[in-house]
Amino acid sequence: MIIEYDGSNYHGFQAQNNAITVQEKLVEGINELTKEKANIVCAGRTDAGVHALGQVIAFDTDATIPGERWAIALNNYLPSDINVISSFHVDNDFNPRFHALSKKYTYLILNSSKRTPFWNKYAYCTLGKFEREAIREACQFFVGKHNFRGFCASGSSAKTFERTVHSCKLWEHKDFMGINIVADGFLYNMVRIIVGTLLEIGSKKRSPDVVENLIRSQNRALAGPTAPPQGLYLNKVYYACDLQEEKSTKK
Amino acid sequence: MIIEYDGSNYHGFQAQNNAITVQEKLVEGINELTKEKANIVCAGRTDAGVHALGQVIAFDTDATIPGERWAIALNNYLPSDINVISSFHVDNDFNPRFHALSKKYTYLILNSSKRTPFWNKYAYCTLGKFEREAIREACQFFVGKHNFRGFCASGSSAKTFERTVHSCKLWEHKDFMGINIVADGFLYNMVRIIVGTLLEIGSKKRSPDVVENLIRSQNRALAGPTAPPQGLYLNKVYYACDLQEEKSTKK
Repeated sequence: MIIEYDGSNYHGFQAQNNAITVQEKLVEGINELTKEKANIVCAGRTDAGVHALGQVIAFDTDATIPGERWAIALNNYLPSDINVISSFHVDNDFNPRFHALSKKYTYLILNSSKRTPFWNKYAYCTLGKFEREAIREACQFFVGKHNFRGFCASGSSAKTFERTVHSCKLWEHKDFMGINIVADGFLYNMVRIIVGTLLEIGSKKRSPDVVENLIRSQNRALAGPTAPPQGLYLNKVYYACDLQEEKSTKK
Repeated sequence: MIIEYDGSNYHGFQAQNNAITVQEKLVEGINELTKEKANIVCAGRTDAGVHALGQVIAFDTDATIPGERWAIALNNYLPSDINVISSFHVDNDFNPRFHALSKKYTYLILNSSKRTPFWNKYAYCTLGKFEREAIREACQFFVGKHNFRGFCASGSSAKTFERTVHSCKLWEHKDFMGINIVADGFLYNMVRIIVGTLLEIGSKKRSPDVVENLIRSQNRALAGPTAPPQGLYLNKVYYACDLQEEKSTKK
C-alpha cells in the first residue's frame, strides 16, 4: 500500500506502548476489516510529527479482498488523517524497506517576513532571512557516496554510515523553500541535520563549502542543529519497478 | 488589535476553567509583557476548532508601549498559532463587539473526489458531490433582513433573532468551495447551520427555494445540520471606520 498521513497527531509511525502511532491505527483498521492482526512493515519509520506523502507498507493477509480494493475498503476504517492512496498484491517476499532502492524526503520551510499561525504543524516556520544561493551551492556537497556519521543522531543502531545521496535540491514557491533529498538510504535524523546545517549556511553563519569538512569529520557535534520534525515529509519510495507502474500493469 | 489564529488547539476564544483558550493565551502574553491582567473584549467569540483571520480585540492598559508597537511586542509572548497582525490605540469607549457594523465569516469546504489527510483541521473535508449552482441559488435567499431563529442553536441567549445578511456567496478554487457571509450580526452557530443547510441543498436533498420556508418557520429542527467547526473562519470585522484605514491614518 502507498499511504499518506498527517503526522501531527501521532508519535511517529512505529507502534509503541502508551502512545498513539500511525502503525497502531493501521493495525486497528485492518483488524476491524478482516479480524486479522496484521504485522506491518514500512519503507521508512517516521518520527513524531513527521508526515508522509508516499509511505509504503506491506503485510500478509488471508483476506480475499482483491489487492486493488484494499485502499477503499481500509480507508473506511482509518482516521481522516491517514489515507491509503493505492493498494495491490505483491510477491510474498516483498519487503518495503529492504527492497527500496531509494527514498525521497522533502523538508518544507515557511520563510515569510511575518508570523503565520496556520503552518506550524506542516512546515518549519522561521522569520530568518536566508541566502538561497548559498543553500543551493551547499546542497551540491551532499551529493555522492559519503560517510554520513556526522549527520546521524547519536544512539543510532546503524551498522554502516555510508549512504549515496542521488540528489539534494532547493526549490522555492512563494514564501516556501523546500529541500528535496533522494538517497539510497537515510541515517537517523539525517535529513533534519542536513537541513539544520543548510539553514545555518543560508543565514551566513557558515560558508557553503564547510559541508565537505563536516562530512569528512564524521563528527555530529560539528554539523548544524536538527531541524524540527514538522517540516519533514517522506515523499516517495523507489523500487526496481515503480510500485505505481506495477499497479497499472497488474490492473 | 487585529489577530489571526489557528483554532484547532483551543477550546474557543473565550476564557473558561479547565480548558485552554485563545483569550487565556492573550492574557498570559500581555501579563508577561506588562505585568497587567488585561480584560479582553473581542468582536466575535469563536467556538472550539474555529479559526480567525481577522478577529478584533481591545483592552485597557497602563503600559507606555506605543499602539503600533504592541503587535511586535506581544507576538514575542504568544504561541506560534496566534498572531497579532496589527495594533493601535483606540478611543477609551471603543468596544470591538458593540461597535462592529458587520462581520464576515468564511466557511471552507474541501470537496475532493479522494481523501486528503492534511486538511481536516482547516476545512470541512467531504467526498460528497455538490450541485454548485443549487447552492449559489439558495445563498440568495439568506440575503436581507430576516428572523434567523430557525438558524440559531437552541440554548442561545440572544434577545432578538433578526439579523441582516448583507451578502452570502459561494466561491470556488480548485477542490475547495468557500461560502462567505457578511451580516450585521450572527446568532449562535448561524453560519454553520446555514452551511449545513446549503450542503443539503447542494446534494439535492432539498431544493434551493426551501430556504424561504425554513426562515419563515423559525424552527431550528427544520433546517440542516450544523456544519463542523474546523471549516469556519472569522474573516473580517467592519467598523464605521475600517480599523486598518484608521491605523494608516494614525501612523
